[in-house]
Amino acid sequence: MNIPNSKFPRVVIIGGGFAGIQMAKALANKAVQIVLIDKHNYHTFQPLLYQVASGGLEPDSIAYPLRKIIKKHKQTFFRLANVFKLDASRQLITADIGDLSYDYLVIATGTKTNFFGNAAIEKFSMPMKKVPQALNIRSLILQNFEKATIAKNENDRKGFLNFVIVGGGPTGVELAGAIAELKNHILPRDYHDLNRDDMKIHLLEGHERLLPPMSTNASLKAEEFLKALGVEVHCKTIVTNYDGKTVSTNSGHQMEAETLIWAAGVTGAPVDGLEAKSLLERSNRYRVNQFNQIEGYTNIFALGDIAYMETDNYPNGHPQVAQPAIQQGKLLGKNLMRLINKQPLKPFRYNDKGSMATIGRNKAVVDLNNFKFSGVFAWFIWMFIHLMVLVGFRNRVIVFFNWLYSYINFDKAARLIIRPFTKKKAPS
Amino acid sequence: MNIPNSKFPRVVIIGGGFAGIQMAKALANKAVQIVLIDKHNYHTFQPLLYQVASGGLEPDSIAYPLRKIIKKHKQTFFRLANVFKLDASRQLITADIGDLSYDYLVIATGTKTNFFGNAAIEKFSMPMKKVPQALNIRSLILQNFEKATIAKNENDRKGFLNFVIVGGGPTGVELAGAIAELKNHILPRDYHDLNRDDMKIHLLEGHERLLPPMSTNASLKAEEFLKALGVEVHCKTIVTNYDGKTVSTNSGHQMEAETLIWAAGVTGAPVDGLEAKSLLERSNRYRVNQFNQIEGYTNIFALGDIAYMETDNYPNGHPQVAQPAIQQGKLLGKNLMRLINKQPLKPFRYNDKGSMATIGRNKAVVDLNNFKFSGVFAWFIWMFIHLMVLVGFRNRVIVFFNWLYSYINFDKAARLIIRPFTKKKAPS
Repeated sequence: MNIPNSKFPRVVIIGGGFAGIQMAKALANKAVQIVLIDKHNYHTFQPLLYQVASGGLEPDSIAYPLRKIIKKHKQTFFRLANVFKLDASRQLITADIGDLSYDYLVIATGTKTNFFGNAAIEKFSMPMKKVPQALNIRSLILQNFEKATIAKNENDRKGFLNFVIVGGGPTGVELAGAIAELKNHILPRDYHDLNRDDMKIHLLEGHERLLPPMSTNASLKAEEFLKALGVEVHCKTIVTNYDGKTVSTNSGHQMEAETLIWAAGVTGAPVDGLEAKSLLERSNRYRVNQFNQIEGYTNIFALGDIAYMETDNYPNGHPQVAQPAIQQGKLLGKNLMRLINKQPLKPFRYNDKGSMATIGRNKAVVDLNNFKFSGVFAWFIWMFIHLMVLVGFRNRVIVFFNWLYSYINFDKAARLIIRPFTKKKAPS
Repeated sequence: MNIPNSKFPRVVIIGGGFAGIQMAKALANKAVQIVLIDKHNYHTFQPLLYQVASGGLEPDSIAYPLRKIIKKHKQTFFRLANVFKLDASRQLITADIGDLSYDYLVIATGTKTNFFGNAAIEKFSMPMKKVPQALNIRSLILQNFEKATIAKNENDRKGFLNFVIVGGGPTGVELAGAIAELKNHILPRDYHDLNRDDMKIHLLEGHERLLPPMSTNASLKAEEFLKALGVEVHCKTIVTNYDGKTVSTNSGHQMEAETLIWAAGVTGAPVDGLEAKSLLERSNRYRVNQFNQIEGYTNIFALGDIAYMETDNYPNGHPQVAQPAIQQGKLLGKNLMRLINKQPLKPFRYNDKGSMATIGRNKAVVDLNNFKFSGVFAWFIWMFIHLMVLVGFRNRVIVFFNWLYSYINFDKAARLIIRPFTKKKAPS
């Protein structure tokens, strides 16, 4: 990989998500050589991907070049690569661009979409974990609007205007709200040859309520907000099949829909090569101790979504959201220097800052430890927090301006079909 | 195409470039039905494409949804389609989404890249006429930077860092300047494992000076500015071959370069079906009279780049730039209503507002009728004019902020490899 030798120990971080970049930042200008590896040359702010998918923001507002994040540290290297194997006994990783030895290895590869083994759904549905996937959804929504204007019959038209979102977590809820805004504000104004009432948005959730990890109050409010926007919410509903045209559910329901967005679950994206027992079977997360060391190793760590740490307060692991990743990344940055200097390590204690979801303009739900609320104030809090966590001053300004513009004009301006999305052919 | 019948005559406009949108706007709320057809769902502000290609702007800053432009006119329809044939005797066009009859037809399809019949260059070089092409160039530049960091030997590294731009018109000059800024400001800061001096930018022009249609003063200044930025300018040089690795020129020169950007010429993109004599042989432009009627037809018009109109002041036709297209579009909007109302038409008189090109921060050349200047003031004029001509308030603000940000930080922030570009395989 063409990384020069250094007198400092080499720390290889795989993954430039929240955990990886916090760790790299925490180690900046310390006596280590850092190699940050990612499949993309940018960090993705995943909580706002749904706004890219719905035409509200362009990717550069929520993505940030990884080289810009680490540039201040002279001993830091970035490599654009896909790591597919590691050999703990030789302290070596193997990627598509070659091998690299490490002194300390940090696996912060996060999660990928979980289709629960359903090949048909994997083939025909749209996941939304990455920027290109969000752009595919944007293209498909806009292409289907265009196709609806020239549909041969009513049935075809309804299929193009039927949007099914699977998964009632924050991603599904926020995306359903954003697509409802397209229906309520964009369709009547820019598509006067389409009938807005022909467009339907269905949100499907397997549990008995939306946003299962949040409070009942948040779930009920989110459902109320979504219904007010015209989203049809189906709880206790699981998709059993999708052939690119027809969605089938466990309740025997069938829906014609050209668009099925899959936000129903994630599974870890581990690297091959560690002992099988270090990995949790169902969720593909690495079992780590309170210092994020993977079970059985002292110099291999897992951080964030892919780390499974049981603590007294979190006997089933931490939620797979940004905050545990950020906090673990920061702590491990410090702990690693302690480890190198043979000092005692500090155990991880998750500081739960609460959770939130936005449903549309003026509408959000927020659960803090002692305070649960919803509505306009929650919406402002949601915006403020997201702007603050976003990486980079420029991105904050651009996102803020876009939100202000959209708020005043009821518009989503990035409605561009730049790379048309070609659906795989459904059996006819 | 599912366009309803109307009591008004139907005007079909093919192409949503400068000419097409001005024409559609000029006809807004007049007693006509307008059908605007384009291959993309957005208008592209081509003069700033080079900033997308060099990571300075995201596409949504310079592209604008066509439906937003025409939404105020109730009798206007947009169709996303590729028109490939027209039948003047039946007054019918044929597109991939079906046929459509017209009362008046406006061809504003512009130009496409001209490879002058060289299949090898067409296969391996990067054109820059469309947003996806500009994004391909952005990806390729950034991918080559990454590949340079892991190059196996010096020769390979130099190939990855050698950028050859063919064509010394405004597009080539502006892109060369922008890539030079990547070399001068981004490489030393974000790629500390690359040696900036290894990066070379070559600008090749067949004529004896850059910016051939502009004043000699502008040409000389542009060359001086480019050289100061480190661009190697080769005039009287024509590329004869490119196999994806090696560029060959008429002077016998050979250069190893993984990137060849082709901005050397355009040719019209006509629609099949009109009599051959209506089309100019070399440039593929429609011969039109002073009312933009295509020779031999009274209800078929050509506008902008694809129209070839000989006038006393412009015996060889108008320059293929934005202004003639804008002015012809506006005039034809009015003339068409005169034609329908059986009033005399007004002939086109081109109001030449001058030409300009920017080379980098604080550097531009401007030719007005009586006033030719360059430097910082020219650069401000260039920015002001481009901001004013840009479609949409939001786009103006976003572009302005991005320019301000880049100016202060010497940065280009949209350096994202979202869709990696895969070069066609060169023979090994």
